[in-house]
Amino acid sequence: MTIESFLLKSEGEWKSMRSGHSLAFQQFEEVISQIKITILKLTNSKVSALLSSIPLQTGIPTTPFRMAWNAESDWEPDDPNQVSSGECILIPIKQSESNGLLIRSVGYAESEQAISKYKLLNDDTFTLSTEYGQSVAEERIWFISPNVRCRSSVLKTISGNGILQTSFSSEVRKLDLNG
Amino acid sequence: MTIESFLLKSEGEWKSMRSGHSLAFQQFEEVISQIKITILKLTNSKVSALLSSIPLQTGIPTTPFRMAWNAESDWEPDDPNQVSSGECILIPIKQSESNGLLIRSVGYAESEQAISKYKLLNDDTFTLSTEYGQSVAEERIWFISPNVRCRSSVLKTISGNGILQTSFSSEVRKLDLNG
Repeated sequence: MTIESFLLKSEGEWKSMRSGHSLAFQQFEEVISQIKITILKLTNSKVSALLSSIPLQTGIPTTPFRMAWNAESDWEPDDPNQVSSGECILIPIKQSESNGLLIRSVGYAESEQAISKYKLLNDDTFTLSTEYGQSVAEERIWFISPNVRCRSSVLKTISGNGILQTSFSSEVRKLDLNG
Repeated sequence: MTIESFLLKSEGEWKSMRSGHSLAFQQFEEVISQIKITILKLTNSKVSALLSSIPLQTGIPTTPFRMAWNAESDWEPDDPNQVSSGECILIPIKQSESNGLLIRSVGYAESEQAISKYKLLNDDTFTLSTEYGQSVAEERIWFISPNVRCRSSVLKTISGNGILQTSFSSEVRKLDLNG
């Protein structure tokens, strides 16, 4: 598995079930969302703009993509059907066959640019580590069939072993039955 | 990481938050449970009885343990506080440093003996694959800190790519504050 083949397998529309676990309070969060992943060209103007907005990095940009999402969360008790949506541009910068950086125009946990480190494990799991201020998010994404991906994440304090929250998503490809 | 050190790290009492995803119906299940893992001796009479009840396997029995659990599920709408509990004996049979079998006196998905295959990946993830009739359960367990484990599972059809359900647990060690 290469970063390119992993992303080509990921392209398309997905329906995601996500469970969040707040460990200190033992609270569950449930979110159903739509995710759309589209591979972009390196010549795309938003891709060039993002690349030129960050300090120069060692490595080769490859397979940029757009991720758009649309979520319904149960988190806000006053507004159970609150919908949040957004999109961002992501650009892998390959530093070896299995390692590199992932530049993201907007982060998940905070609304700012992020530079993550990625690694492809030898069982084809894609891992991502991102620092946000005083915390670190560690994600794992793996395919359990061509049309089902799993994603787990852990948010921990940067200094040590404090685990703030975990989450898990099951993502099922939306098949185009008219295709 | 060896199977022995993985199990020694796992010994103790854990509080588990588990989310189940039923993919076809997009239903969430939430369960909070207590789990207690106790390492047993190979000379324990229940261990010997379990070993002699199965066909002879290639490999070396090591680090048998008891797992007891006590769960509260939200699954039954009529009885939201339904409690289910149980315990089983498990015996790893080591076939190489990273591979082997796990004999279990009672399975999770069905109430019968099970023989699983385990593997320790090079990032210290413990994986388990168990066949139950027409389905296969694949589990992954990994430590994200000395006192927090994550566990993901996938139940799929034995014949191919049909994914029946997924689940994810965050397990936090219950510390003995009296010391």
